[in-house]
Amino acid sequence: MAGSTFGNYFKITTWGESHGKALGVVVDGCPAGIPLTEEDIQKFLDRRKPGQSRYSTPRKEDDRVELLSGVFEGHTTGAPISMIVFNKSQRSADYSEIAGYYRPGHADYTFDLKYGFRDYRGGGRSSARETIGRVAAGAIAVKLLNRLGIDFTTYTQAIGPVSIDPASFDAAQIPLNPLNMPDAAAAERAAAYLDECRSAQDSSGGVVECIVSHMIPGLGDPVFEKLSANLAKAIFSIGAVKSFELGDGLAAARARGSENNDAFRSTEDGIRKATNHSGGTLGGISDGSDLLLRVGIKPTPSIFATQQTVNKSGEPIEINIKGRHDPVVVPRAVVVVEAMTALTIVDALFANMHAKLSSIESFYDRRA
Amino acid sequence: MAGSTFGNYFKITTWGESHGKALGVVVDGCPAGIPLTEEDIQKFLDRRKPGQSRYSTPRKEDDRVELLSGVFEGHTTGAPISMIVFNKSQRSADYSEIAGYYRPGHADYTFDLKYGFRDYRGGGRSSARETIGRVAAGAIAVKLLNRLGIDFTTYTQAIGPVSIDPASFDAAQIPLNPLNMPDAAAAERAAAYLDECRSAQDSSGGVVECIVSHMIPGLGDPVFEKLSANLAKAIFSIGAVKSFELGDGLAAARARGSENNDAFRSTEDGIRKATNHSGGTLGGISDGSDLLLRVGIKPTPSIFATQQTVNKSGEPIEINIKGRHDPVVVPRAVVVVEAMTALTIVDALFANMHAKLSSIESFYDRRA
Amino acid sequence: MAGSTFGNYFKITTWGESHGKALGVVVDGCPAGIPLTEEDIQKFLDRRKPGQSRYSTPRKEDDRVELLSGVFEGHTTGAPISMIVFNKSQRSADYSEIAGYYRPGHADYTFDLKYGFRDYRGGGRSSARETIGRVAAGAIAVKLLNRLGIDFTTYTQAIGPVSIDPASFDAAQIPLNPLNMPDAAAAERAAAYLDECRSAQDSSGGVVECIVSHMIPGLGDPVFEKLSANLAKAIFSIGAVKSFELGDGLAAARARGSENNDAFRSTEDGIRKATNHSGGTLGGISDGSDLLLRVGIKPTPSIFATQQTVNKSGEPIEINIKGRHDPVVVPRAVVVVEAMTALTIVDALFANMHAKLSSIESFYDRRA
Amino acid sequence: MAGSTFGNYFKITTWGESHGKALGVVVDGCPAGIPLTEEDIQKFLDRRKPGQSRYSTPRKEDDRVELLSGVFEGHTTGAPISMIVFNKSQRSADYSEIAGYYRPGHADYTFDLKYGFRDYRGGGRSSARETIGRVAAGAIAVKLLNRLGIDFTTYTQAIGPVSIDPASFDAAQIPLNPLNMPDAAAAERAAAYLDECRSAQDSSGGVVECIVSHMIPGLGDPVFEKLSANLAKAIFSIGAVKSFELGDGLAAARARGSENNDAFRSTEDGIRKATNHSGGTLGGISDGSDLLLRVGIKPTPSIFATQQTVNKSGEPIEINIKGRHDPVVVPRAVVVVEAMTALTIVDALFANMHAKLSSIESFYDRRA
Repeated sequence: MAGSTFGNYFKITTWGESHGKALGVVVDGCPAGIPLTEEDIQKFLDRRKPGQSRYSTPRKEDDRVELLSGVFEGHTTGAPISMIVFNKSQRSADYSEIAGYYRPGHADYTFDLKYGFRDYRGGGRSSARETIGRVAAGAIAVKLLNRLGIDFTTYTQAIGPVSIDPASFDAAQIPLNPLNMPDAAAAERAAAYLDECRSAQDSSGGVVECIVSHMIPGLGDPVFEKLSANLAKAIFSIGAVKSFELGDGLAAARARGSENNDAFRSTEDGIRKATNHSGGTLGGISDGSDLLLRVGIKPTPSIFATQQTVNKSGEPIEINIKGRHDPVVVPRAVVVVEAMTALTIVDALFANMHAKLSSIESFYDRRA
Repeated sequence: MAGSTFGNYFKITTWGESHGKALGVVVDGCPAGIPLTEEDIQKFLDRRKPGQSRYSTPRKEDDRVELLSGVFEGHTTGAPISMIVFNKSQRSADYSEIAGYYRPGHADYTFDLKYGFRDYRGGGRSSARETIGRVAAGAIAVKLLNRLGIDFTTYTQAIGPVSIDPASFDAAQIPLNPLNMPDAAAAERAAAYLDECRSAQDSSGGVVECIVSHMIPGLGDPVFEKLSANLAKAIFSIGAVKSFELGDGLAAARARGSENNDAFRSTEDGIRKATNHSGGTLGGISDGSDLLLRVGIKPTPSIFATQQTVNKSGEPIEINIKGRHDPVVVPRAVVVVEAMTALTIVDALFANMHAKLSSIESFYDRRA
Repeated sequence: MAGSTFGNYFKITTWGESHGKALGVVVDGCPAGIPLTEEDIQKFLDRRKPGQSRYSTPRKEDDRVELLSGVFEGHTTGAPISMIVFNKSQRSADYSEIAGYYRPGHADYTFDLKYGFRDYRGGGRSSARETIGRVAAGAIAVKLLNRLGIDFTTYTQAIGPVSIDPASFDAAQIPLNPLNMPDAAAAERAAAYLDECRSAQDSSGGVVECIVSHMIPGLGDPVFEKLSANLAKAIFSIGAVKSFELGDGLAAARARGSENNDAFRSTEDGIRKATNHSGGTLGGISDGSDLLLRVGIKPTPSIFATQQTVNKSGEPIEINIKGRHDPVVVPRAVVVVEAMTALTIVDALFANMHAKLSSIESFYDRRA
Repeated sequence: MAGSTFGNYFKITTWGESHGKALGVVVDGCPAGIPLTEEDIQKFLDRRKPGQSRYSTPRKEDDRVELLSGVFEGHTTGAPISMIVFNKSQRSADYSEIAGYYRPGHADYTFDLKYGFRDYRGGGRSSARETIGRVAAGAIAVKLLNRLGIDFTTYTQAIGPVSIDPASFDAAQIPLNPLNMPDAAAAERAAAYLDECRSAQDSSGGVVECIVSHMIPGLGDPVFEKLSANLAKAIFSIGAVKSFELGDGLAAARARGSENNDAFRSTEDGIRKATNHSGGTLGGISDGSDLLLRVGIKPTPSIFATQQTVNKSGEPIEINIKGRHDPVVVPRAVVVVEAMTALTIVDALFANMHAKLSSIESFYDRRA
C-alpha cells in the first residue's frame, strides 16, 4: 500500500532512507500566499538534530534543507512544495553486519517478511531519519497555525521513571536543557538516570506532551474523522510510540462521571469549560479549550548490551549492536510530535470550511 | 468534511441518528464469495444490545438488521452491502428539554459551533447508536478474518478502579457475566462498584482490551499507514475513548531497552518473539505474535446528579439529565472495539497483497 | 476495490441492485443548513423515470424516495444523508434465462470473470437502476449550486444520426418532448428514427450535452484534480458512455491555434473570454465562462433481434433477449449527466475554499 | 486541494515548475522486487524530449533523471521512489514580460484568480514540463505491466486534418518519424501541414491513440472506479486534452445496437469477442480484448502571430509571444498518454487482487 502520504487536504508525502542519497517531503495542498524561506524550515529541523548533547547520538547530521518548488518571490504559490535534505554522513559499513540477522525491537524482521528483502543500511524507512520530512512539513503547518493565533508547547514530560513536577512547570526551560523538559530539576534527575542507563549499556523510554493553545473550536468531523482520531493516527505513525492519551487519558477510565465532566460556564470570551479533563475535544471536535495530548515512547531498541536473537536462517545468535545510537529518543521526538499534531490540525482546519451552507454562500458571494 | 467513511479497501460508511427513522451502514469493497446471512450480523448486534442487565440502559432496543444489497444466493457478490436497522423506540420527548442547553461531557456544544444548529434528539450522530453500523460491518470483517484463522478475544479489563486479575484470566467467563469480564470475581467486585456509582447518581469509566491471535504477519504499511497507527485511529474514532495503548503501552515509556526488547527465537512454527512487549507489531507491521490493544473509556457523561452548565445564551443553569442512560458503557463497547479492530486488519490485509512483485506475478500468471 | 464512492469532499456512496430489495445512496460531507425535502429529490428522480413515452421501457417504476437521515426540521444537519428507493417491480422471472449465457454489450461476462459469479437478475450493479442513487444525490448538489447562482441546461443533442440544429436551439423545448431535445423539429425526426429502429428490433445511441452557466471561476486543482479531469471521470463512470468532450472537443484537434485560442477582453462584468472554444476551463480550472460538455452514449445493448453469443461453457448459442427494454437510453441519461456534473462541481467548490492564505485568515478571523 | 497525486494503490505525486530548481515525482506503493535502473526511466524521458526535430521546440532540455530512494541493490524495495530532474535551461528572461498579461489559451488567468498570484515563469505547474514526473513514474508502471505480458502501442493518429490510413498502419514506423505516426506517408503529409502552420505563425492540434494488448481481464471496479472512468480522468488530467474516446467512441453514439454489440465466441484461448467496438471494457471492466483509447489534443496556444488580450488591469493589448515553443505538442504527448494509461492500469491491477474471497484465501493460505 502507498503508505507515505499523510493528510487529506494538506497532504505530505515523505520519502528517503537513512543511508540513501537524500530524504525529503512533498507538501501538497498548501495555500498560496504564505511567506516561506528555507530558514523557516531549518529552524524546525535543527530542533530534531542529534549531537546536541551527550544524551543523543554523536553522529554529525548537518541536515540542510533545500526548497525545490512551490515557492516564488518568497511566498507559497499553491503548488506542491518539495523539500530535500541530502544525506552526508552515511557510514554504511556500520550496518553491513546487521544484514544477516534480526535486531530485537527493530523492524528488520517485519520488512523482510513483507517485502522479501530490505534495505538493511540503518533501518531504511523505519529509521528515525524518516522524520526529517515530517518535521520540514510540520514547520509550514505550525507557521500557518501561528498566523491564526494557535500556539504549541511541546516538551518531554518524563524520561523513564523521572517525570516533571506539574507544580514546577516552566515552559521557558524547554529549550534550555538538552532533554527539553519544562522543569530544570527534573531535567537534572533525568540526566542522571540516563547516565545510569548508559553505564548499563541500556536505553530509556519516556513521555512527550503537547499543548495546543488558542485552539479554534469546531475542528474535526464526525464520526471517523474526529480530530482526536486523526491525532491518534498521526502520533502512532511515529516510530517507537506505544501509547496515546487525550486530556486525562487513561485516568478518565478510573474516574466517575461527576469528576470527569467539564462544566460549561460563561466568561468574558464567551462560553468556556470550567475544567479541561477532556483535553480539548467534545465528540471528537475541538471545543476551544487547549488540546492536551500525551505520548508514550518506548526505549531505544539499539542497546550496546549483548542480546539474543536469530539470523535469517533462524539460527540463534548473540549480537552486540555497534554504531552510534541515542540512549533515548524522547527529546528528539518532541518536535516530531509537534509537527504531526500541527499537520493534523491544519487538515481539520481546511475540512471545516465547508461545514455550513452559510459559510459557503458568504465565501462565494458574487452580488457585490 | 465527509467523515462517515472508514477504510481504504474495505470501506464502510455509517449513517443515521439515534432518533431518526433508521441507522445503517454501507460496506463497500467486500470480496465476492463470503457466505453471509442476516443472522451472522444479528449475532454481533446482539452483543451491543442494551437492556441485558441492570448495568445498562433499560431502553428496549430490539435492533433487527436487514440486508438490502450485495448478497445473492447466500453469498456476497462484491457489490456494496447495505444494512439497515429501523429505530423503534424513539422517545424524543425525553430530549426536547436539552435542545436549549449544553450537557457537560457531550458534543452538544461543539455540534452547535460547527454546524450552526444540531439534531438535539439524543445526541444525533454523537449517540452511541451510531456504532450499530460499525458493529454490523465489523461482523463481516470478523467473519472474513476467522476464515483465515485469525481469532478475537475482546473483554472488559477494568470498570473504574476494579481490574481483572491476569492470574485468573478465563476467556470462557466473558459472555457469562453482564460486564464481559474474563474473571468472575472481578466482575462481581465491579458490579458492586457500579451499584455504588448508581446510588450516588454517578457513572463509571473503564478499560477494554482486545487480543487478536493467529495474526498474519506483514500487515501494515510504512510509514503513515502502520497497522498500529490505523488501529489508533479506528479506536479513537469511537466516542468516549480517551487512551489507546499497544502491547506494554505507557509502561514501555517507563522501561529500559533491555526489558522492553522482544528477543527472537526459533520455534517449530518458525521465527517467533520470546516475549510480546511490543503488542504484535514491529515498525508498525504485524510480526505474527498476538496483537494486544488496550482502550481507556471515560465515564458516561449523562449522570442523574445535578450539574452546572449554561444554556445557549450562555446563562448559567443547573440541570438534571432525565431519560434512560447506561451507568457504564464499557461492556457494550467491547464489541465495538472488536469491530473497529477487525475492520482495520481487513484493510491492511488487502493492502498487503500487492507488496511484492513476485506475489503479483503469481496472482496474474497466465502461462498455464 | 471499494468503487461505489464518488467525490472527496461531497462524497456519495451508491448501493443496490436492480432486482434487490432497494437501492440507495449515502451523501456525506453535505453542509448543514440546506433546506431539503423528499420532494426536492423526487423531482429529479422523476426526470429519469421510464415509462413516460413509447421511447422508453414500459416498465412501471414508481420510484419513491425516502429520506432516512441527515435532515432535521427541514434542513440538512451536516450528518450523512441516507436516501432509499424500494424496488417494487422486480420480475426476476424475465431474467432467469440469462443466468447461463453472456449478453453481447453487457457486463455479464466481466462480472463473472472478476467475481466468480454474478447477480444475474437484470444486470445487478451494472443496471441503469444504479443511477437512482446518483440522481438523488445530484438533486442536492444542483440545489446547492443553484443557491450560488449556477444553472444547468442539459439535453439530448443527438439520437443516432439526428442532431439538433444549433440555430433552432430552444431550451424551453427540453421538457416538452419525450426525448428532451431543445429543438422540436429535430425531436420529431429523432422519434421517427427510433420508430424505425424499433421496427428493425434494434436500438440507437445518441449524444447528451450539458451547459453550466454563471460558473464560479477558479474551481479545479492542478494537476490531477483538474475540474475537466474530474468531469471526465464522473461522466465516464456512467454506464454506456463512450466519449467525453469539453468545449470544441475533438474538433479542437483539427483546428489551428489562431482559431482555437479564446481572446480575453474587458466587459462590464470584468475580464471575459470573447469566445469559448475551451468549454469553460483553462489549465483545467474554471474560467468563469460556461462549462460545455458533450457525452457520447452507445446504443442500448439489449435488442430484440437474434444475436450470436456463447453460454458459460463457451458453447455458441443464438439468443433473443426478452423483457422490457428502452430502444434508447439517451433521454433518461440527461438527468444522470447533470447529476454527475453537479456532484463534480460541488466537490471542486469546497476544495477551492482553502486555496489562499488570505481566504483562510478571513474565514477564521477571531479578532472581532 | 492537494491535486498533485494520482492513483490509489500505485500513487504518484509530481512536483516542480518549468523554471524552478528541479522537477520530480514520488512513486509510492510500488511493489518490492522490480529490477530498476535510472536507464529504465531515462529511456522514457527521452521519448518526450524536445529538440529532436524541427517540429518541436529547439530548447535544449538534456533532462537527466536521478533515482534518490526506494531502490536498493538494483531492485525496488517497496519504499517510495523519489526521482528528480534538475532544470538546466531556464531562460526566465523570456517570460518576464508575460507576468503582466493573460495569454489566450493558457492558464495564466485562472491561476491568478485561484491563487491571487502566480509563478509566471513559463507557466509554472501548467507547463508541459510537469509531465516529466508522469513519464518517469509511467516508465515503472509500463515495466511492471510488461512483466505481466501487457504491451503498449501509442502513436500520433492525426495532426490537424491529416490522419493515418488504417490500411497502412505499421507500428514499426512510430519511432522512425519525428511525429510518431505509424504511417510514413501520413507522417510526410503531416510534416508539410506543420510547415504551413509554422509559416502562418500558427500551431496545430492532433490526436493520439493508445492500444493496450494482452490485457488482463477483470480490471476496474463498479461503479465509479470503472477502468474506463479512471482512464478518462488520467488522460484528461494532461494539459491540452479536449476529448477522450474508448473504442468506437463518439461513433458509437451514431450506431445501432446490432452494429455496436460485440458478439462473444469461443476460441482456442477461451471466450473472446468477435469484434471490439467497446474498446476493451464491458461495464467499465476490462474484458480481455485490446484497450483502445483516442485522445484529442488542442493546438499549442503559444503562437507567434499577434493576438488580442488584456493585461491584469483589464486593459486591451496586442501581444506577440516570444520564446521557444512547439508548433505542435502531439508527438511529445504520445509518451505522456502511454504513461498515464499504464499508471491507471497498474492501479486497477492491484485493486483487483482482493475481489474474491477465494483469491484472498489462497494468497494467505498458511496450512502448508
